[in-house]
Amino acid sequence: MRVIVDAYGGDNAPLEVVKGAVDARAEYGFDIVLTGNEEEIRRIAEEHKLSLSGIEIVHTTDVISMNDIPKTILREHKDCSMAVGLRLLAEGGADAFVSAGSTGALLMGATFIVKRIKGVSRPALAAIIPSDKGPFMLLDSGANLDCRPEMLFQFARMGSLYMSLVMKNGEPATVGLLNVGTEEHKGSDLQHETYALLKESDMPFVGNVEARDVPAGAADVIVADGFSGNVLLKTLEGTVGMLLGYIKQIFYTNLCTKIAALFIKPHLSGLKQKLSTEEHGGAPLLGVAKPVIKAHGNAKARAIKNAIRVAAEFSRVGVIEKITDSVKGE
Amino acid sequence: MRVIVDAYGGDNAPLEVVKGAVDARAEYGFDIVLTGNEEEIRRIAEEHKLSLSGIEIVHTTDVISMNDIPKTILREHKDCSMAVGLRLLAEGGADAFVSAGSTGALLMGATFIVKRIKGVSRPALAAIIPSDKGPFMLLDSGANLDCRPEMLFQFARMGSLYMSLVMKNGEPATVGLLNVGTEEHKGSDLQHETYALLKESDMPFVGNVEARDVPAGAADVIVADGFSGNVLLKTLEGTVGMLLGYIKQIFYTNLCTKIAALFIKPHLSGLKQKLSTEEHGGAPLLGVAKPVIKAHGNAKARAIKNAIRVAAEFSRVGVIEKITDSVKGE
Repeated sequence: MRVIVDAYGGDNAPLEVVKGAVDARAEYGFDIVLTGNEEEIRRIAEEHKLSLSGIEIVHTTDVISMNDIPKTILREHKDCSMAVGLRLLAEGGADAFVSAGSTGALLMGATFIVKRIKGVSRPALAAIIPSDKGPFMLLDSGANLDCRPEMLFQFARMGSLYMSLVMKNGEPATVGLLNVGTEEHKGSDLQHETYALLKESDMPFVGNVEARDVPAGAADVIVADGFSGNVLLKTLEGTVGMLLGYIKQIFYTNLCTKIAALFIKPHLSGLKQKLSTEEHGGAPLLGVAKPVIKAHGNAKARAIKNAIRVAAEFSRVGVIEKITDSVKGE
Repeated sequence: MRVIVDAYGGDNAPLEVVKGAVDARAEYGFDIVLTGNEEEIRRIAEEHKLSLSGIEIVHTTDVISMNDIPKTILREHKDCSMAVGLRLLAEGGADAFVSAGSTGALLMGATFIVKRIKGVSRPALAAIIPSDKGPFMLLDSGANLDCRPEMLFQFARMGSLYMSLVMKNGEPATVGLLNVGTEEHKGSDLQHETYALLKESDMPFVGNVEARDVPAGAADVIVADGFSGNVLLKTLEGTVGMLLGYIKQIFYTNLCTKIAALFIKPHLSGLKQKLSTEEHGGAPLLGVAKPVIKAHGNAKARAIKNAIRVAAEFSRVGVIEKITDSVKGE
C-alpha cells in the first residue's frame, strides 16, 4: 500500500503532516510519499527526531493556499505540492492521496488531473460525521451547490457503496434524503424527483430525513445538494462549539461548579473526542477515479495518520471499482 | 389591544392554549378572543379554575390538523378554529392573531384570507432564535423552498424592520446572507444576485455568513431560501437536543458525576431556558397584511402567553405600516 500525502496542505503543515505520515508509516507499515520542499521536510524531521525511513519525498517548492482561486492549481500553481501529488496518483505512482489543503483546489485538481470515474457527472465531497449510532456520511457537503436529481441519485449510490465497504464490513448502508419534512410530498422538485429515483432503486432507502434527526444518525448516508449539505455540516459544528463554550462557562460559575467540573470534565473530553471528526480521517472525494481524501484544514498529526489509514482502506476494499460497475449499469 | 388566539392549534391544545390566554389577559390586560369549541373551553376553564373574564369565545367545532393538506383551510376546513380566527382578523375584529397549529395551513390561510401586503411577493416564516448576543431572526425558515433574489431582498427588508422595531427599540438591525463562505464570490446565482442587491441597499448588511457562525448570533437577521433556512433551524434544534442528551448520560456515569451533577444542573436548566424559543413566543409571518404569529407546535401556556405579548407588540409598533411603505418605495 502506497499513499501520497500533501506535506504542505492545511493550517498545521508541514510539521503536523510530516508527524502524521511518520506515525502512519510506523503503525501501518504503508509506503508513504510526501510532496513538498524536501530540504525543509528533512530539517523538520531532524529537529523533531522523526524517522523518514520508508518515506519518499517528491520535491516541489510551490504551495496553493486557501486564498488562491481553485482553478490556479491547473496553471499558475500546477507544480504545487497538491498538484504534484495528484499527478503522481493519476500516473499510477501510488494507491491513494491525502491533503488537508484548500477544498476547492483539491476538487478542481482531482477532477481534472485524476479525472472522474466514467459516467459520474460530478464528484462529491462526502463528509464523515460521528454520531451515537456510528459515523454517517453527508454528501454533497459543499462541492456542488446546484444539483440535479440524477446527481443526488449518483451521490446516494457512491455514498452507499463507500459506507458499506469502508465503514460497515460490507453490510448494506441505508440512504436518507435531506428534506424539510418526512412525508413523500415534502420539498421542492429536486427532492420529489430524487425521492422517486431512490424509491425505485435497490438501495436501502429510508425516505426523507429532517435535519433535526440527522445529528443523531438517521441513516448511514444522507444525500443533499451541496448548499444545504454545507449548511447542515457547519450548523452542526457551530452549535457543538457554542454549547461546549456555554458549558465551560457554567463550570467557572463558582467554587462548587469548579469542583463539580473536576468530575465531569474527563467525561466531557470523551464526548468531545466522540464528536470529533479526527478519528474518521477526513472526507472522501467520491466519483474521482482514484482514492482522494480531504483531511480537515486544522488537522493535526493524529487526524493525518487516520486520514492515511482511511485512504488506504478506500483503495484496499475496491470502492472505485464497485462505483465504476454501478455507474456503468445505469 | 385585542388578540385572537386559535384555541385548538398545537399539540397541547386546548388546555395549554387556554391557560396561556388567561395568563396573558391577567398579565397584560389585553382583550383576548379564543376560537374553538365554546362548550369544551368553558368546561376546561371550570375544571382548571381559569377565569375567562375579559376573554371572548368565538364558537367553532372544526379543527385543521397537522395531517390535513394546508389548502383545505380554504375549503373543507374553512370553519376550523384557525380559519375562523384569520377571517376575524382580516375583517378588522382584532389587532393580531396567534396559532400553534399547522404551519402550512397557517401560511396558506394567512396568505389567502388575511392577504399579503401590497407589493410583497411571498410572505416568509421568520424564526426567532435565541443566542448569546440576544435573539436573531432567520427567514425564510421553511415557507418558500425556492426563492428568487428579489424575494430574499424583501425578506431582508421585512426582517430588518421587524427586528429593529420589535426587538431592538428602533436601533438598526444588521442583515447577513446565509452562504457557504464569507467571500463575496461564494455561493450560487441566488446568493450572488442577492448579495449585490443587499450591498446596494441602505440596510446594515454584514455580508455573507457561514452557518457555523449563525448559532452564536452573526447578525440580527439571517436571510436564506426556505430550504436551507429550514435545514439550519432544525440542525440547530437537533444538535442541541443530542448534546444535552449526552450530558445527561455523563451525569449518570457514577456516584461522583451524580453528585457533581447536583451543582451543575441548576445552571444547565438556565442554559436550556436561554436556548429555548419559548421566551420569544413564536415566528412572525412577515409580508401578511396583519400581525400573525406562529407559536411552536409543542407550545405550553408560557410560550402561548409570550406569543400573545409578541403579537401585540408586532401590532403596536406598526411594523406592517413600515413594511408597506418600504415595499411601495422599491
